[in-house]
Amino acid sequence: MPIFFNVLPPSEALLLLLSHVRPRVQAETLPTVEALDRVTVAPLAAPHPLPTFRRGTMDGYAVRAADTYGATGSLPAFLQVVGEVAMGRPPNVTLSPGQAAIIHTGGALPETADAVVQVENTQPVGDGEIEVVKAVAAGENVIQVGEDVATGEEILPAGHWLRPQDLGGLLALGITEVPVARKPRVALIATGDEVIPPDQEAGPGQVRDINSYTTAAQTLRAGGEPLLYGIIPDDLPALEAAAARAMAEADLLVFSAGSSVSVRDATALVIAGLGEPGILFHGVAIRPGKPTIGAIADGKPAIGLPGNPVSAMNLFDLLVVPTIHRLLDCHNPPQHSVVRARVARNVAATPGREDRVPAKLVRRDGELWAEPVFGKSNLIYTLVHADGTFVVPLDAAGVTAGEWVEVRLF
Amino acid sequence: MPIFFNVLPPSEALLLLLSHVRPRVQAETLPTVEALDRVTVAPLAAPHPLPTFRRGTMDGYAVRAADTYGATGSLPAFLQVVGEVAMGRPPNVTLSPGQAAIIHTGGALPETADAVVQVENTQPVGDGEIEVVKAVAAGENVIQVGEDVATGEEILPAGHWLRPQDLGGLLALGITEVPVARKPRVALIATGDEVIPPDQEAGPGQVRDINSYTTAAQTLRAGGEPLLYGIIPDDLPALEAAAARAMAEADLLVFSAGSSVSVRDATALVIAGLGEPGILFHGVAIRPGKPTIGAIADGKPAIGLPGNPVSAMNLFDLLVVPTIHRLLDCHNPPQHSVVRARVARNVAATPGREDRVPAKLVRRDGELWAEPVFGKSNLIYTLVHADGTFVVPLDAAGVTAGEWVEVRLF
Repeated sequence: MPIFFNVLPPSEALLLLLSHVRPRVQAETLPTVEALDRVTVAPLAAPHPLPTFRRGTMDGYAVRAADTYGATGSLPAFLQVVGEVAMGRPPNVTLSPGQAAIIHTGGALPETADAVVQVENTQPVGDGEIEVVKAVAAGENVIQVGEDVATGEEILPAGHWLRPQDLGGLLALGITEVPVARKPRVALIATGDEVIPPDQEAGPGQVRDINSYTTAAQTLRAGGEPLLYGIIPDDLPALEAAAARAMAEADLLVFSAGSSVSVRDATALVIAGLGEPGILFHGVAIRPGKPTIGAIADGKPAIGLPGNPVSAMNLFDLLVVPTIHRLLDCHNPPQHSVVRARVARNVAATPGREDRVPAKLVRRDGELWAEPVFGKSNLIYTLVHADGTFVVPLDAAGVTAGEWVEVRLF
Repeated sequence: MPIFFNVLPPSEALLLLLSHVRPRVQAETLPTVEALDRVTVAPLAAPHPLPTFRRGTMDGYAVRAADTYGATGSLPAFLQVVGEVAMGRPPNVTLSPGQAAIIHTGGALPETADAVVQVENTQPVGDGEIEVVKAVAAGENVIQVGEDVATGEEILPAGHWLRPQDLGGLLALGITEVPVARKPRVALIATGDEVIPPDQEAGPGQVRDINSYTTAAQTLRAGGEPLLYGIIPDDLPALEAAAARAMAEADLLVFSAGSSVSVRDATALVIAGLGEPGILFHGVAIRPGKPTIGAIADGKPAIGLPGNPVSAMNLFDLLVVPTIHRLLDCHNPPQHSVVRARVARNVAATPGREDRVPAKLVRRDGELWAEPVFGKSNLIYTLVHADGTFVVPLDAAGVTAGEWVEVRLF
């Protein structure tokens, strides 16, 4: 079977892949207080209005606004204080014309009151009377019932990544459980005869597996559940068996291929044989990370990442993270922070290939500079020493020192 | 005891608070694979070089570079192929002058080889011989021992927030356990007679506690451990008892005050009485969130947040998140993503106060616009409907439609 080599620009590779990915959203119900960074599966509606009662927004006096009309410092309105609104209780006061009640921020407005006069605009004058030196309009300093949300209003759409304030919004309405998407299960399969587990002593010619763990961490941050399949030797039946298990257990398969030609070929063969339509592209015009495979097998995305750890992280970020978000059907996934900085030195690049350059951010003379971290692209410490990466676009021959770039922190 | 009111601009309030916060870093040792988003407590050094052996970076032939000098397409060098480097094994070939060995990307260079010729620059010519059509320099296509990191080199400083690539860097060196800072314990104390737990039916005048949960989520994101103390009624001894417990158990105390004057006064009294030097500021020139207290009590920061949920989140973000990072002694904490956008309509503001305006991001004609989400500042759904906030600076009277602002996503 021929391994076709069909190299696409990064944005096209991503679009082609995503065009085949259907959301696979199974719901599970979680306590709202544990649903941070999970994704809703259905729109949620308000079971009751918020607030449920008319609330004052100032410390002062609940009044009938009409009683204050025309009031000024030189011609104040005089009102009789007939009570105080207790916090957390139904209002126990009713105002007749010419009457007021003490109210605290957040307190419930008495039934016949329709505004709050700030305490600063009043003056006690003895005998339980106050003078009001500034008129208020009806509704002033009051939150109306349903002003935050009305009953039945959609409060969150489906596919919403839950942030701290979203949990607050749900709990404010007494929604203490929320159906969220099960985390997409991402099978992480490492291959290569030279690769050993990190807790083993590396003999000559051996390197420790780090791709399983860097991509597991990336999976967690993207909202997925990593399933580690360990290190599969450079052996077609063993790879096929691991892939078959992953097809049964996971929503998304990620291979990080060993370095040798034979294991790369074996990985490509296995990916091609997983199901229809098979391989969509084999090669992405990006550095580092060119020898990457994108495939769809019977509806499941399968990505073959290069073995070198920087390429693997780079292409995971480009292709797998958006795929996880698509599986979650999420419209507002978390984004990398982006910082504008000036490039500290010239960076050469090859047109026709997008370069992702690791860079350290340095503040100099009040300006932010991106110092490229040079080093062969497969050295993990180029990424450890970097704060992020910037892109030299496909059609550029490089970036000149002093040019502005956007550094994506990661 | 007088409650002094000492309002500071936001940046000054933060600086004053942080100037009193000492890192409180207790170490705990975690498996490296579980240390994502934790913070190192000491610099870490490489126990051995990386890589540990000379590795080829191309598929091709390991050679003695001198044998290829002067080789061109018209005048190739001829080399005898004497073996193949097996992946993951010590090199089992030694090259004499005029000899080459097949090598795969990542393979170990034979001892007397010093370069790799890419397969594309070779041609088999029969009898186990190849011609080399392009000379290589010594060291070409080779990663030297220690080129990624040298033995003893500092690989991570103290106070480093561990990202996916950092875990990879540690595991590549066989560092499978890492000492990290224990998460700072953040006591979250809600107060107010009108506040009830979220799973209860809210009667007239009652509102559900959401500050405990929004700030718990913010604590988690900032790398802290939230300790929820529940809702304390508006009662000085009860507040004092909760605060004493928090002083004993937590590294940082956060009160979210109820709405009424009396509970706000009681909270301020309790904070003032926790220890020396006491309250640093009482009031921050920011909207929403002005009535905020910053204090230090016997070395522990104590923050009194306003009761309204938007203010509470806003000031938590401004003051508490950096305090958690300072307690962790972290130099690279995660940052909010920032997006530049044009303001979709005029926003008025009061000079002398920093405004944080919730906004929704909308793409229009290829440009990103920030639509302010209007609403009274204590409505939690203004934040739920927003993608982030932008700042109207202290000295500005507003922002004009079309102006560029930086929207912090949260």
